[in-house]
Amino acid sequence: MSAIQKNVESASESYSSTFTKGDLVLPPAKKYLVLTCMDARIDPAQAFGIELGDAHVIRNAGASAVDALRSIVISEQLLGTNEIVLVKHTGCGMLTFKNEDAYGVVEKNLGSQAVEELNKIKLDFLPFPQLEKAVEEDVKFLQQSKLVPDSVAISGWVYEVETGKTRRVV
Amino acid sequence: MSAIQKNVESASESYSSTFTKGDLVLPPAKKYLVLTCMDARIDPAQAFGIELGDAHVIRNAGASAVDALRSIVISEQLLGTNEIVLVKHTGCGMLTFKNEDAYGVVEKNLGSQAVEELNKIKLDFLPFPQLEKAVEEDVKFLQQSKLVPDSVAISGWVYEVETGKTRRVV
Repeated sequence: MSAIQKNVESASESYSSTFTKGDLVLPPAKKYLVLTCMDARIDPAQAFGIELGDAHVIRNAGASAVDALRSIVISEQLLGTNEIVLVKHTGCGMLTFKNEDAYGVVEKNLGSQAVEELNKIKLDFLPFPQLEKAVEEDVKFLQQSKLVPDSVAISGWVYEVETGKTRRVV
Repeated sequence: MSAIQKNVESASESYSSTFTKGDLVLPPAKKYLVLTCMDARIDPAQAFGIELGDAHVIRNAGASAVDALRSIVISEQLLGTNEIVLVKHTGCGMLTFKNEDAYGVVEKNLGSQAVEELNKIKLDFLPFPQLEKAVEEDVKFLQQSKLVPDSVAISGWVYEVETGKTRRVV
């Protein structure tokens, strides 16, 4: 067992020993979802004030709305949420490369068969060159999608990894 | 401004006022990633023992490895992680419907144009009928992917929303 796996086991023992929220139901109590980045420096529950049971939390590389669409439709249509809080962040890795760079790294590290796999599934890594603009574009993408009804409130934010602040963009 | 948006602002004020981790770097310090579900009843940092800055956290509907592949490749190949902790959970919404059910709900709620949109992007909602089996299949999918090298350690777990425990499956 790896050190990481041992850490999951000891965290589980500690967390479950004082756990009192076993009766929460499946649909989020406050009917909203937060979409943010997988970045290790973000703790959504603490930084954005999410109580256990209140909101879906979707996280992927760059807080991409395009990538998250499957989860968003499930959240809205099957589990009753009606508000989206989208949060990208300063210092995001997605600001640092282009698709061709990522394809190049995969080829160098994993070989041509891996690149064939990328090509087969036409993988777009969805990097973005400008942070605030990317927030605006993702909010617009959701507003314009036929899969997100106009009744869903959508706001876009930037979390600052340097200060712990979250500020509204759109 | 909605109540949810006001809550983000007040949480930000409170969180940033005592924030001391502004110097953390982009790559996860403990070089691992956690993939889990967007479910509102999961707090990965607390339940799985993740310190700020230590691990990427990817979350989507059902903790789907297929859906998370873009983020996983970025985490492993561009940001240096080499271990995956995959955690699905009891009471998951993905156990409760099939693709055709979701398509039906979208048609009923949002109309035929929305269903056309689903068809155009061939959206697979990726539900699963059996929890432990889905964990095993997702771990196998990652182990067999040419985009995840054999050097990456992969474990599969179930989080129990009733007890707060996380138990190893594979």
